[in-house]
Amino acid sequence: MAEPHDAVSVIATKRDHGELDDASIDWVVDAYTRGVVADEQMSALAMAILLNGMTRREVARWTAAMIASGERMDFSSLSRPTADKHSTGGVGDKITLPLAPLVAACGVAVPQLSGRGLGHTGGTLDKLEAVPGWRAELSNAEMLAQLEDVGAVVCAAGTGLAPADRKLYALRDVTGTVEAVPLIASSIMSKKIAEGTGALVLDVKVGTGAFMKDRATARELAETMVALGTDAGVRTVALLTDMSTPLGLTAGNALEVAESVEVLAGGGPGDVVELTVALAREMLAAAGVDDADPADRLRDGSAMDVWRRMLAAQGGDPDAPLPTARETHVVTAPATGVLTRLDAMAVGIAAWRLGAGRARKEDRVQAAAGVRLHAKPGDRVTEGAPLLTLHTDEPERFERALPALDGGFDVGDEPAGSTPLVLDRVAD
Amino acid sequence: MAEPHDAVSVIATKRDHGELDDASIDWVVDAYTRGVVADEQMSALAMAILLNGMTRREVARWTAAMIASGERMDFSSLSRPTADKHSTGGVGDKITLPLAPLVAACGVAVPQLSGRGLGHTGGTLDKLEAVPGWRAELSNAEMLAQLEDVGAVVCAAGTGLAPADRKLYALRDVTGTVEAVPLIASSIMSKKIAEGTGALVLDVKVGTGAFMKDRATARELAETMVALGTDAGVRTVALLTDMSTPLGLTAGNALEVAESVEVLAGGGPGDVVELTVALAREMLAAAGVDDADPADRLRDGSAMDVWRRMLAAQGGDPDAPLPTARETHVVTAPATGVLTRLDAMAVGIAAWRLGAGRARKEDRVQAAAGVRLHAKPGDRVTEGAPLLTLHTDEPERFERALPALDGGFDVGDEPAGSTPLVLDRVAD
Repeated sequence: MAEPHDAVSVIATKRDHGELDDASIDWVVDAYTRGVVADEQMSALAMAILLNGMTRREVARWTAAMIASGERMDFSSLSRPTADKHSTGGVGDKITLPLAPLVAACGVAVPQLSGRGLGHTGGTLDKLEAVPGWRAELSNAEMLAQLEDVGAVVCAAGTGLAPADRKLYALRDVTGTVEAVPLIASSIMSKKIAEGTGALVLDVKVGTGAFMKDRATARELAETMVALGTDAGVRTVALLTDMSTPLGLTAGNALEVAESVEVLAGGGPGDVVELTVALAREMLAAAGVDDADPADRLRDGSAMDVWRRMLAAQGGDPDAPLPTARETHVVTAPATGVLTRLDAMAVGIAAWRLGAGRARKEDRVQAAAGVRLHAKPGDRVTEGAPLLTLHTDEPERFERALPALDGGFDVGDEPAGSTPLVLDRVAD
Repeated sequence: MAEPHDAVSVIATKRDHGELDDASIDWVVDAYTRGVVADEQMSALAMAILLNGMTRREVARWTAAMIASGERMDFSSLSRPTADKHSTGGVGDKITLPLAPLVAACGVAVPQLSGRGLGHTGGTLDKLEAVPGWRAELSNAEMLAQLEDVGAVVCAAGTGLAPADRKLYALRDVTGTVEAVPLIASSIMSKKIAEGTGALVLDVKVGTGAFMKDRATARELAETMVALGTDAGVRTVALLTDMSTPLGLTAGNALEVAESVEVLAGGGPGDVVELTVALAREMLAAAGVDDADPADRLRDGSAMDVWRRMLAAQGGDPDAPLPTARETHVVTAPATGVLTRLDAMAVGIAAWRLGAGRARKEDRVQAAAGVRLHAKPGDRVTEGAPLLTLHTDEPERFERALPALDGGFDVGDEPAGSTPLVLDRVAD
């Protein structure tokens, strides 16, 4: 049967700075999913979108077309409102782990469909898989039941949501077109809208360890995603948060689980607590719940209680010891003074090379590998005292990880001006 | 074996407005030819090149890498200098037919590797195949022998020259990336440089019937190609010529052969003669021959003599009658006055739909199909008198061809200002 559109014409329109009409967008996304538009045509279109941009209307229609490629979930039968959070990815970003049970403890259900890590940022599922017995795969029915019973679920996104996005993401990954703001926004939002959450809080990272290196691009992405969510009826807010240095004192799967448990126990690093509580407040507000103080729920143990039930519901043993690395290597401070900079990307790449992350989708990660920080920017350090401890099961990885840290930190005489953690807030 | 470069990094460099280094260019062209760089990666790179451009150094290296993908020919054993001509394609552009024997008659050998037509512009091989018995395929040895004996050869380019270009051209055709000036220039010039001609004259068409619609882009393409030829040691000159109206009074294979024979017999339409002689003078000058006047050689029959020997050497019978169409349809002038416009694209598409051209590579063309013009812009026309005659073997094609001519010509009271045929000249 003849196709109603022609791929070269659609590509040429965007190439020549034109605007794609609704019918062209619907067709090209659907035809690509069907294999009628070839990979080499979609990659040329993706590059044209990256370089020439898309209007708000184009991105909204593109997102709708991606959602239409698959199933939609429905949480309307739940007795509680729902709120979800998405982070664009950072180093040491374990926030989902304390956040999901915390928000659930405040009366809002958290349906968190997550992914595995690729590159220097870790994946939430990889982290939770460090918990003995825990499994990421749930059926839709299991997910709904757990949301009703426990209030929080973190699990793998099924293959039914936005299959066009999965195919397109794999293509962008090998064609240098990951960085297109309209395509990043529609990729994230198509899955979140199809997932059926009522409210959504976006944590858009900015800085050396983030995908978005500069605040202007991060804000552009945040505004695009907030508009997409709002237009689709999801109450959506975004925080722009600093990712120039790792979050907390750990980067790595089991290391981050342990740190999350400290936060749920009422302790933990100040920045992790601050961001967890800030995001929880946004999620509660977006879900219309204003009578709960998340800081209280960390102190009174109710968030920890949800955490334990959440793990157990997915086969995890919250009391089992976490894996520890067979080998460690200490990096010491080169001078006495103030740690003025500790680069997120340097730490992220080191953790990745130690085995905490994967270079290809089919790689396995080490649960125990990663980096522990003994100081954060602004802290005093002493020459020869531990600055970082590297963890891995394979000692030959140290020599690959250490060069990533070269030039990754500075020790000075005076503390540098500190950056706030939450840089900006974007709402429609 | 590990590859020394990575496709995504090469794509990202061009995407981010960077300059590709020599090693990256050599690798990406070679790896694409080997199938290591995938079609979807090369198409993303092609789109980035189209939108972000290339420096003179980058285009030169890209061209060299395409040449290195295949064989090079060598005409240094010939007793005469060589000169070739390339046209970017126009409607009624039969110039190669009289030009090659004319230049040969002046003492310069013309090794003209040509292609078949695709779309609204005809191909030189399609035209010559209207001559009964003529064959386009020659071995390299046959080509060399004919160049020495006859002085002119028009034949199909072998598959050994710049195979990377063939693969890349097919990809660009389906990915909306044909229009990239650096890629057009390197595609043309890689084959011409690999062919081994000593001098090259480029006929860059500008106007509605040409690939380049505006003079600025045409000049950019001409300058890029002249630079590429010069840097490769080929004496290269370009003429920018008008393609807003068809060349001569015919568009179609046998019709154009007949018109070319008129020119070789000392007659023919003024614009075809003018451009043939202008290009011949450039080719002779570039080849270092300054003692021959091509206009004389048209008058004294020596160009016609080479034409007949050139056809006969490839099996063609110069005395055989040319095919004629089974059906004709006359389009009459809608008013009495001056023909102020006759659009090249309209006539080109009409001829194509009548069967003179092909929509897909595997289509066959009709030798006799095409359009004959009874007037050129500036000529007086009378209401009801023939303006165009359409020729085809399949009368059902008239109803497909006629809509292409709607709005394709204007009759007014006063002649419009005339455009010179040769608009500009570019040399290094």
